[in-house]
Amino acid sequence: MLDFDKLDKLIHEKGRLSIMTLLASRAEWPFQELKAQLNMSDGNLITHLRTLHQAGYVSFTKEMLDRPQTRYALTTKGRQAFQVYLKLLEEIIKTSRS
Amino acid sequence: MLDFDKLDKLIHEKGRLSIMTLLASRAEWPFQELKAQLNMSDGNLITHLRTLHQAGYVSFTKEMLDRPQTRYALTTKGRQAFQVYLKLLEEIIKTSRS
Repeated sequence: MLDFDKLDKLIHEKGRLSIMTLLASRAEWPFQELKAQLNMSDGNLITHLRTLHQAGYVSFTKEMLDRPQTRYALTTKGRQAFQVYLKLLEEIIKTSRS
Repeated sequence: MLDFDKLDKLIHEKGRLSIMTLLASRAEWPFQELKAQLNMSDGNLITHLRTLHQAGYVSFTKEMLDRPQTRYALTTKGRQAFQVYLKLLEEIIKTSRS
């Protein structure tokens, strides 16, 4: 049977799931581009990114271009945790359609 | 881009997702069998089933056998909502691995 206790609550929350999905799809995301893709306030986005960063799932790089820019990326730990999560989603789909 | 606002919060919650996954995998589930499959207290399970019933996703049938038995099943509406949810999971997996 599927072990739903393995479902990573940090990732499963809707807002963070949307962020993780975007981060997984590219090497790096500037904050403004993440924001443009997500229907989320600055405050919410920042809070979720901080939570993911504190869990060790997300790294950020700050750089002074014309103006300050912060870019976000999945860490190896974050990528691994997300792979485990996606694997469980696949099992959910498989079980549901069996 | 993926529309995470379409993610059905009723289904996405971990406990209810585990229930929906089980219900989708069989025509009917007696309460005791659901409970045996899930790592959940009676109270939690009943609360989640009630929420899903009130949303129109789950029907139940009560019958007097040797002792009272209640069996749960997905409704047509619940099955459709779950299909939409699973479709979004598939898109998340696809996007993440692109």
